[in-house]
Amino acid sequence: MRSVSIIGIGETRMGRFPDRSIRDMILEAGTKAINDSGIDKKSIEAVYLGNFDGQQLCGQGHMGPLVSEVLDLGNIPTVRTEGACASGSLAFRMGLTAVMSGMYDIVLVGGVEKMTHRATDDVTEALVSAMDYELEATQGFTFPANFAMMANRYFYEYRNVKKEMAMCAVNAHRNASLNPDAQMPKEITLEKALAASPIATPLSLFDCSLVTDGAAFLVLATTEIAKKIKKHRVVEVIGSGHAGDNITLFSKKAITSFSAAKLAAKQAYNQANLKPADIDFAEVHDCFTITQIINIEDLGFAEPGYGADLVAEGGIALEGKKPINSSGGLKAKGHPIGATGLSQIFEVVTQLRGDAGQRQLKKADIGLTHNLGGTAATCVINIFRGL
Amino acid sequence: MRSVSIIGIGETRMGRFPDRSIRDMILEAGTKAINDSGIDKKSIEAVYLGNFDGQQLCGQGHMGPLVSEVLDLGNIPTVRTEGACASGSLAFRMGLTAVMSGMYDIVLVGGVEKMTHRATDDVTEALVSAMDYELEATQGFTFPANFAMMANRYFYEYRNVKKEMAMCAVNAHRNASLNPDAQMPKEITLEKALAASPIATPLSLFDCSLVTDGAAFLVLATTEIAKKIKKHRVVEVIGSGHAGDNITLFSKKAITSFSAAKLAAKQAYNQANLKPADIDFAEVHDCFTITQIINIEDLGFAEPGYGADLVAEGGIALEGKKPINSSGGLKAKGHPIGATGLSQIFEVVTQLRGDAGQRQLKKADIGLTHNLGGTAATCVINIFRGL
Repeated sequence: MRSVSIIGIGETRMGRFPDRSIRDMILEAGTKAINDSGIDKKSIEAVYLGNFDGQQLCGQGHMGPLVSEVLDLGNIPTVRTEGACASGSLAFRMGLTAVMSGMYDIVLVGGVEKMTHRATDDVTEALVSAMDYELEATQGFTFPANFAMMANRYFYEYRNVKKEMAMCAVNAHRNASLNPDAQMPKEITLEKALAASPIATPLSLFDCSLVTDGAAFLVLATTEIAKKIKKHRVVEVIGSGHAGDNITLFSKKAITSFSAAKLAAKQAYNQANLKPADIDFAEVHDCFTITQIINIEDLGFAEPGYGADLVAEGGIALEGKKPINSSGGLKAKGHPIGATGLSQIFEVVTQLRGDAGQRQLKKADIGLTHNLGGTAATCVINIFRGL
Repeated sequence: MRSVSIIGIGETRMGRFPDRSIRDMILEAGTKAINDSGIDKKSIEAVYLGNFDGQQLCGQGHMGPLVSEVLDLGNIPTVRTEGACASGSLAFRMGLTAVMSGMYDIVLVGGVEKMTHRATDDVTEALVSAMDYELEATQGFTFPANFAMMANRYFYEYRNVKKEMAMCAVNAHRNASLNPDAQMPKEITLEKALAASPIATPLSLFDCSLVTDGAAFLVLATTEIAKKIKKHRVVEVIGSGHAGDNITLFSKKAITSFSAAKLAAKQAYNQANLKPADIDFAEVHDCFTITQIINIEDLGFAEPGYGADLVAEGGIALEGKKPINSSGGLKAKGHPIGATGLSQIFEVVTQLRGDAGQRQLKKADIGLTHNLGGTAATCVINIFRGL
């Protein structure tokens, strides 16, 4: 298997854009990524596009050829991947393995979602398609409810971490305030987060991620090609893991840690030959603040039951010992579902290149992304190193 | 790259099944494929699932983990692929390349669609998500209309082949009458086909494929593993091609032949080191009868403009020199969109094993599948050999 690097990145601003179409967002983010790479777009051999629910939300499926048409890439093969909120990371995995295997040398990986134009009920209906329709969605389950159950169980098994959950939101909003692409670039106070309206107890408003329009694209190539370009610091993919779990909540063996995430992390760490302590910073899937605390534990950044301590001591801040979600995360940068996993990688590459401006981390040589889908039924974890 | 073979196949009957859920159809077809392979299901390392529009039609996305839960496959990685009517073939391509590359030794590939429970308008709305929503679907384009334009242009450039189109339907229905899995297992006469109600001139009722519920699954393994099983004739994948084209009809350079199909065919033939004349039989994407005639030309079975001659002389019949759609095709076996490409492979494997009963071909050593997506914007072509 060959070494693969990221040679180009591009994304739209995340937010609520009633006048922007999927076509339009693909054009912006795709063009930015190709231009950033410095390669001739005719050298792109395949497209992998992550999208969660363009059909139900926008009437648009078959987005692979939409990308190749919009970006004028010719007759190359395209695939859309879908795995709920991990749809973008699945596109990344497919593109990564195609280049690793020698099938292609240069591929384009993208993700896009347009959601904010639909009524809240329609968005909720679309979101619950990521759980089991027959056994869960038709019974009234929603994702805030599912993750609230996890939070309640976590409180029961360990301790009440409602305050630390609010701290995750405060950290996300602070970082987003320094990110020009963020949907909610404004700071919030701990008091405001704790006093917010309940959504599904113990989750309140600031415990929940955003509904977002946006797109993010990456150009992947062999590290050999990447080293020849000399335009940016080379960012190599040194580890990648992908695991799954049952789709239903009720059939899971545990809901205060996610077996898909622990397995994917193990694969990625083994491939990179690294330990959790070796990771400088991470973008993790904070669909809800409780998820972020569980992720910290699943990734081995803290022992089970102690994830909140890292948050409370300021460890996840930009100046902390393990900065998390320097981008603002799903909570405040935004959660354009099919693009989310790639937007996480966009941030890691930006940090590794030293291009993160006011939110630039002091030590950024090894970064990790963690992207979950559904009720933790899909997980992709990647580790990147700046060479 | 390693040689890959198909070691297990399973499918549901195709048809209108108001009482069957997606979960239920996955269970039947997946279990059949695993049992047919003779392997322990715990040796399956990944799942690739093709589905076109489960979210819009049934409220169900994220079908990868649904498969692993229903079939009790544990924490393995899963991906859903979507590329309109070629969604199933994309799952096959992803699974194939994962085994070819050495990433996995044994994978499960599946496809499923449930459509017939929805009103015709809802199905049409779902189908047009495979074209460009902004520029085509909102303007009233439908697939019968798009392919009728192709037929009219074909008549203009070459000659009127309406009669030969009807002959394709007659052939499909005859073959379906010999296929216990077919949705419409009854013969029709040429007169009946020619006298049918118009849908989009020159396409009439029997020129159009079916709306179908169904699922098809395959187990893929290295040919080395396949040879050790000794349960069935080993069916090796000797060539595979995948190419694309613009999503919109208006931007295509030609609409009487499909550049995606010609490119994918070239890749598959080159990889197999074979010529069109070497192919014993084929399952081709007859979403409309005009498409079948164009496919015959794109695959090199006839010169451009002469595809209808092969049909008129009986060449595509079970006893003909190039039997096409021995299964009954999309026209009469059915078109369960996400499962269609895999249902085509199911037929080719069945023929290569000599298990096709009354529709068994005399010479079946090398078979081909041709699966199109959207307005010929995605095409996957595979060539199989019985060892």
